[in-house]
Amino acid sequence: MASPYPKAINPSQTRIGWIGTGIMGAPMASRLLVAGYSLTVYNRTLEKALPLQSQGARVVTSPIEVARHSDVVFTIVGNSRDVNQVTLDPSGVLPGLNSGGVVVDMTTSHPALAREIFAAARAKGCWSVDAPVSGADTGAREGKLAIFAGGDGDVVAWLKPLFDIMGKATYMGEAGCGQSCKFANQITGGAVLVGLSEGLVFAEQAGLDLNKFLDAVRGGAAGSKLMELVGEKMIRKDYRPTGYAEYLVKDLGMALDTLEETDEQRTVVVPGAALTKQLYCAMVANGDAKIGIHGVKTVIERINGK
Amino acid sequence: MASPYPKAINPSQTRIGWIGTGIMGAPMASRLLVAGYSLTVYNRTLEKALPLQSQGARVVTSPIEVARHSDVVFTIVGNSRDVNQVTLDPSGVLPGLNSGGVVVDMTTSHPALAREIFAAARAKGCWSVDAPVSGADTGAREGKLAIFAGGDGDVVAWLKPLFDIMGKATYMGEAGCGQSCKFANQITGGAVLVGLSEGLVFAEQAGLDLNKFLDAVRGGAAGSKLMELVGEKMIRKDYRPTGYAEYLVKDLGMALDTLEETDEQRTVVVPGAALTKQLYCAMVANGDAKIGIHGVKTVIERINGK
Repeated sequence: MASPYPKAINPSQTRIGWIGTGIMGAPMASRLLVAGYSLTVYNRTLEKALPLQSQGARVVTSPIEVARHSDVVFTIVGNSRDVNQVTLDPSGVLPGLNSGGVVVDMTTSHPALAREIFAAARAKGCWSVDAPVSGADTGAREGKLAIFAGGDGDVVAWLKPLFDIMGKATYMGEAGCGQSCKFANQITGGAVLVGLSEGLVFAEQAGLDLNKFLDAVRGGAAGSKLMELVGEKMIRKDYRPTGYAEYLVKDLGMALDTLEETDEQRTVVVPGAALTKQLYCAMVANGDAKIGIHGVKTVIERINGK
Repeated sequence: MASPYPKAINPSQTRIGWIGTGIMGAPMASRLLVAGYSLTVYNRTLEKALPLQSQGARVVTSPIEVARHSDVVFTIVGNSRDVNQVTLDPSGVLPGLNSGGVVVDMTTSHPALAREIFAAARAKGCWSVDAPVSGADTGAREGKLAIFAGGDGDVVAWLKPLFDIMGKATYMGEAGCGQSCKFANQITGGAVLVGLSEGLVFAEQAGLDLNKFLDAVRGGAAGSKLMELVGEKMIRKDYRPTGYAEYLVKDLGMALDTLEETDEQRTVVVPGAALTKQLYCAMVANGDAKIGIHGVKTVIERINGK
């Protein structure tokens, strides 16, 4: 495939659209502004877009307006329904995008939806890429996100200058493969957080100094990125969100649903992930939907009557 | 406390004993020989001690003989029963140790046994330290083990020159605290391996390139030491042991038993660790006791009919 535009991406000629200015979207969009790109921004709750306006972004009141002013539109919203709405609705991105335009969904949403959007984009001479991310708000601020990209390989390669501002993109395969990779990432990372929570609760019950525990363990085989990112916060019970607990319920729910929805031969049984999802569901049931994903330690504590 | 010897530890005056020359013990003992220490070695299966003999160690035929020739005796054997036997039996280490001698148990064994040995050692003017390790055979060979030390703080500090040859020791508290820390480490690390296994099996089923999956994920929040150590081996199905699967059954079994044995107020419920132990029990039941701990991926594959 030839690249969707004859022109390479750069701040002077590539107009960027941004939809979704939450805990992840706002710092990611901000980095593009700092890199010199002009941004047109939409967010359902308008006030959350205003800090970007003060950084120079144009704030508009619908996704279609974003698309009319943009060559590449990024979406990072709540869930699959939101993605569907901002992308495929009559007032959404695709109806407003010129032929050759690209919509990049960085929400963690359903692989089947990514495939549906890809088909709809192609039908009008546009492209779509599914590109969910990992790395929490710290990664978003520092431009160190892992980006899992699905869609057309040449389009993903063409987008590299933009992805590089946010982190490191890896091309995973056809439309939906970015989302599948994110699910596998969440299965892997969710397990790390549960193990870390249980290790800390066990260590505390054994009378150990928890900071010494982290110091001792991080150098051995059980060390992890999440231990470095949130281990000390878990000890201090600082559960301010780096990513919301409810998002992990959503992500693991979709991962398990994806399997249930597929035909029998493609079903994968992942008992650890099922347990992890249950523990995160308990967080939501306990009213902790909006605390950080490392707050799953509170569930292990509650199980133990703390 | 004054240090147990007036003399600092060094190769010209400190005589080392070593009991247990398995997958971990052999490379650890070898590093002490390379550092210039004289070693007296015992192993139940004599042949496994012979490579150390060719490196200059004296090989003897009982733990008590090791103790008679040593100021500091390290034990790293199979399980708590073995530790009990080589340490407390009439032909064991403690009966042979001179007053002021130190026995350091690097086996992952029961905290209650560590406390029992500590008391027995003190009763005859000796010291004991529980100092289990993490970091697999690679860490043992490269001197990069995490060592979790329990016992008297001054004795642990005095042993630093020896621990430094094997890795990095952290003093965790009184006798048994090293073992408790190791259990918490295993709870944490076991979860990482299950999450990694399920992530890989999910990703494979979704049709992703597994090496790309690792490349994409390792930079994000779900990255871990175990991902770096064994992720590619799991993809290649290279399950040669870095640590035996049966040891994780043993370690997690002790961790869960420890809790069941303690009084009600000290019981900790760790559902993830319970599931992890079950998956490792399945490995043993499948005849895979002696493959590596990362072979838990085979259980997730078997659940899915592969």
